[in-house]
Amino acid sequence: MISSELLTRMIRAGAGEEPADVVIKNVRMLDVISGTVTHTDIAIVAGRIVGTYGYYNGKQLIEGDNRYAVPGFIDTHLHIESSLVTPFEFDRCVLPHGVTTALCDPHEIANVLGTDGIRYFLDSAERTIMDIRVNLSSCVPATPFETAGAQIEVDDLLAFRDHPKVLGLAEVMNFPGVLAGDPGMIAKLVAFQDGHIDGHAPLLSDKALNGYIAAGIRTDHEATTAVEAREKLQKGMAILIREGSVSKDLEALAEILDENTSAYVALCTDDRNPLDIAEEGHLDSSIRRLIARGRPLHHVYRAASHSAARIFGLTDRGLIAPGHRADIALLDDLKTCQVAQVISNGRLVEDELFEARKPVPAVGLASMKAKKVTPDTFIVPPNPRQNETPVIAVKPGLILTYRENAVLEISDRGTLPDLDNDVIKIAVIERHGKNGNIARSFCKGYGLKRGAIASSVGHDSHNITVVGVTDEDMALAVNRLIELGGGFTVADTGKVTAELALPLAGLMSLLPFEQVSEKLHTMRDAAFDLGCTLPEPFLQVAFMALPVIPHLKMTDRGLFDVDRFDFVK
Amino acid sequence: MISSELLTRMIRAGAGEEPADVVIKNVRMLDVISGTVTHTDIAIVAGRIVGTYGYYNGKQLIEGDNRYAVPGFIDTHLHIESSLVTPFEFDRCVLPHGVTTALCDPHEIANVLGTDGIRYFLDSAERTIMDIRVNLSSCVPATPFETAGAQIEVDDLLAFRDHPKVLGLAEVMNFPGVLAGDPGMIAKLVAFQDGHIDGHAPLLSDKALNGYIAAGIRTDHEATTAVEAREKLQKGMAILIREGSVSKDLEALAEILDENTSAYVALCTDDRNPLDIAEEGHLDSSIRRLIARGRPLHHVYRAASHSAARIFGLTDRGLIAPGHRADIALLDDLKTCQVAQVISNGRLVEDELFEARKPVPAVGLASMKAKKVTPDTFIVPPNPRQNETPVIAVKPGLILTYRENAVLEISDRGTLPDLDNDVIKIAVIERHGKNGNIARSFCKGYGLKRGAIASSVGHDSHNITVVGVTDEDMALAVNRLIELGGGFTVADTGKVTAELALPLAGLMSLLPFEQVSEKLHTMRDAAFDLGCTLPEPFLQVAFMALPVIPHLKMTDRGLFDVDRFDFVK
Repeated sequence: MISSELLTRMIRAGAGEEPADVVIKNVRMLDVISGTVTHTDIAIVAGRIVGTYGYYNGKQLIEGDNRYAVPGFIDTHLHIESSLVTPFEFDRCVLPHGVTTALCDPHEIANVLGTDGIRYFLDSAERTIMDIRVNLSSCVPATPFETAGAQIEVDDLLAFRDHPKVLGLAEVMNFPGVLAGDPGMIAKLVAFQDGHIDGHAPLLSDKALNGYIAAGIRTDHEATTAVEAREKLQKGMAILIREGSVSKDLEALAEILDENTSAYVALCTDDRNPLDIAEEGHLDSSIRRLIARGRPLHHVYRAASHSAARIFGLTDRGLIAPGHRADIALLDDLKTCQVAQVISNGRLVEDELFEARKPVPAVGLASMKAKKVTPDTFIVPPNPRQNETPVIAVKPGLILTYRENAVLEISDRGTLPDLDNDVIKIAVIERHGKNGNIARSFCKGYGLKRGAIASSVGHDSHNITVVGVTDEDMALAVNRLIELGGGFTVADTGKVTAELALPLAGLMSLLPFEQVSEKLHTMRDAAFDLGCTLPEPFLQVAFMALPVIPHLKMTDRGLFDVDRFDFVK
Repeated sequence: MISSELLTRMIRAGAGEEPADVVIKNVRMLDVISGTVTHTDIAIVAGRIVGTYGYYNGKQLIEGDNRYAVPGFIDTHLHIESSLVTPFEFDRCVLPHGVTTALCDPHEIANVLGTDGIRYFLDSAERTIMDIRVNLSSCVPATPFETAGAQIEVDDLLAFRDHPKVLGLAEVMNFPGVLAGDPGMIAKLVAFQDGHIDGHAPLLSDKALNGYIAAGIRTDHEATTAVEAREKLQKGMAILIREGSVSKDLEALAEILDENTSAYVALCTDDRNPLDIAEEGHLDSSIRRLIARGRPLHHVYRAASHSAARIFGLTDRGLIAPGHRADIALLDDLKTCQVAQVISNGRLVEDELFEARKPVPAVGLASMKAKKVTPDTFIVPPNPRQNETPVIAVKPGLILTYRENAVLEISDRGTLPDLDNDVIKIAVIERHGKNGNIARSFCKGYGLKRGAIASSVGHDSHNITVVGVTDEDMALAVNRLIELGGGFTVADTGKVTAELALPLAGLMSLLPFEQVSEKLHTMRDAAFDLGCTLPEPFLQVAFMALPVIPHLKMTDRGLFDVDRFDFVK
């Protein structure tokens, strides 16, 4: 609680009767309400803005150099794990892009480590410079058709509900469960009726959508067309325009953001990898592109800040105004959202700030509990219906997959790949020490001529997924992955040619984000060397096992027909 | 807490898989986000909307007759006491105007009865059909220059903070106290930092305004010009456009409400008497007039509903959408806001609903603790500076007063009125049993040729205020007022010619609002019979003792120079 003495100091400093703690001098401040730009100082006491539209004295001065000042951006839905770095490195990487608040769902780590993973994120969130808030993962595991590392029930979530960094219940992906009245799902919804409940309802419409929203679910980041988004807006949902590394909805949804809707629209990244952050940016990139597409400038900035804050009940932020948290981005240019400096909770964001954070010990360093494999592990027994061997077909840039049938040759080592038709092997290996499941099949679209690619990132249960041309290289890639404690590996003709260790739960690196970004370049090159024709080889491998995305996927329990929502017989 | 069974029923009914509890059939629903109007049913379960944009079956059907459906209106700041009726009668009077939520500040009754008055309002709020929420009175008494019935400190407020009907801290009128760091005021602000704090800062601007807002104060209903309102908006305050019986700001502020600002603007009445409600309406009247002045229609309705809800953190209401409270107004016409029917928390508003409320016993029935007076009570001793006797000059329709000086004749009964110059006597009599203070002086502008008018409504301490031509009629009016337990009286040449009893704390009638409204007509006529030239005689008497309104006022402690903020020497 704020003390009387401090509140009095805030009032007096705002009134100009004593110096503020920090004054940002000489900025051109954008009013996200009216759209006007005004030259002013911004006075701050103890992280709270106390004065605008005036010139102030302060103990510490930050020269604004006539830059544009806008409220710090709020990423309204993301999985930090997808950045492949720790929350601390995410903080250091993304805060300089103006993102002062991130509402994350630790869904990936929770699928591996359960509540220990959630606790690690909460511990980290208490020490990051940006304000990381946590929505509690609502669907772990995502489906009953796969083996995750943990199962999270309502009582597990309730233990965290009153944590100061917890916001509410994270994306309710299990919309079939909501509509069917699944008791575990309903119990979680009941427990968070008085708080925030985040949605996730791709393509849901009409009365089914009404039923879903009637459960108290208030947001959606899965709309992929303007028509879908408009129906959700009409029905009271806030729309979080997503622009991730895989799912890119900004082009399709840009048209929905205008003067009428800006109070009900916010931005998010969901899953964004460090290469994209380095090359394109983060929410700054979304803002830039929305403005370039003709969306009204101050409404774009409003959606990125104050609308997001209000949608999620964060009443203390989102405006550059007295009484608000001093989260501010200083821009060289408004239209192109060129972030020059960032103020987070009243502090100028510099290297020293990050260095001073008290470290949080890594968790889940022994999460790779799979046993070593041999080439024989990957023998695919002959299909009784040889002419109809199902093959998972992937397309560049899509996490959707398609079912094809292939006629494959059979040898004494079972069914063989068919390189002439780009058909290679795929296997998913349970790695949480639960049952040792191994599923094997075929996929096409990777373009591999040699070798194998393995990943311990495998949405959402994060078992090991490996694709490859030879059983030997598949075994090599997997065994090295297990030695690394998780990550990505590339094997080529008996040699591991590239590797990125992700030892934190098999999902995140312990390295600085710059090194991870650099290594990802090397990794890609190694995959391209094998003949891979997909621009994002590792992301595509990581989504092969996600049984909630159509049409044909493979979990550790076998080939899964998403359309029928059951295993392939 | 909602049960799993009920939530499941809401989801299923929304999805159209079982009948809803209530379905409003065939309405033209206004989307306050996009402005579109669509023909639909509205399905409701247990007071929550579960389905829109579709046709539904229900156990109870309300025929919408193709009327327009809009979200119920939210009065964001008012003193129910100013309606002169109980909260129950206010409910019955105002809910049919479409006002489904009222955020009240029981400041008047709190000045008479202290926390007992607040508790009476909270008890009533738990039983009204409309949702009455209470902001806790922050400034009782309003100033130290008057004798109120009670003094409320931070600990008194904290006892109520977690009551389900309590929203936050009510209008912080004592802005000089905020800026001066008054410890009692600061303590109240500190106690409500995590909740809502309502503002009241007439004419405050520049850095002083910054200091006030830095205290965490988020709204203002005292802006009287567009320039003033725009500065407050720029500094992050929400503007509550007020249209009361005395203070009427809608004409001046209409221009600020547009597509840019509607998320930050709401409506309120502050003080509105039952005559105005009967003759012009309530928030429906404000909506009608804003639209008539060319404000964009759906943004006006948005300000009156969802924007208000968001500004005050009422996340469960303000849209006609699944998951929201079923507070709906059905209109015959959108442009003129002709309210035909109202649905409150899923129930059609009809007489039986009000009749079924479990009564709340009246409180403060013995609040008139003043001793009877005699004509000699009103003798004004000769002013040593006879040529400069200060006189409070009133103007029709203004609560502002002006100081004039008069030369008055002196007899053996002290200084005398001067009817040729419209100068009559005024007295304020402490009535809370605290000290028996009586202050006497002169006023002009009433036009009285005979008799006297007395009132126990006397903002904000609610002592007895009496104005009159003869000492005898003043004594008669006051003594009858004491017998009535408070109210308004008119005496004419030795006879009480009209009276309205307000026995509940000397502020509110126990009669139905229709009778109060009728009696007010009779009261006014009786005042006009005395020669009164003010259209609102009783309201003007009731504001003679309010020492925070410029320029010259009189409390029970004497004549008060508001500009110097001290008593007249």
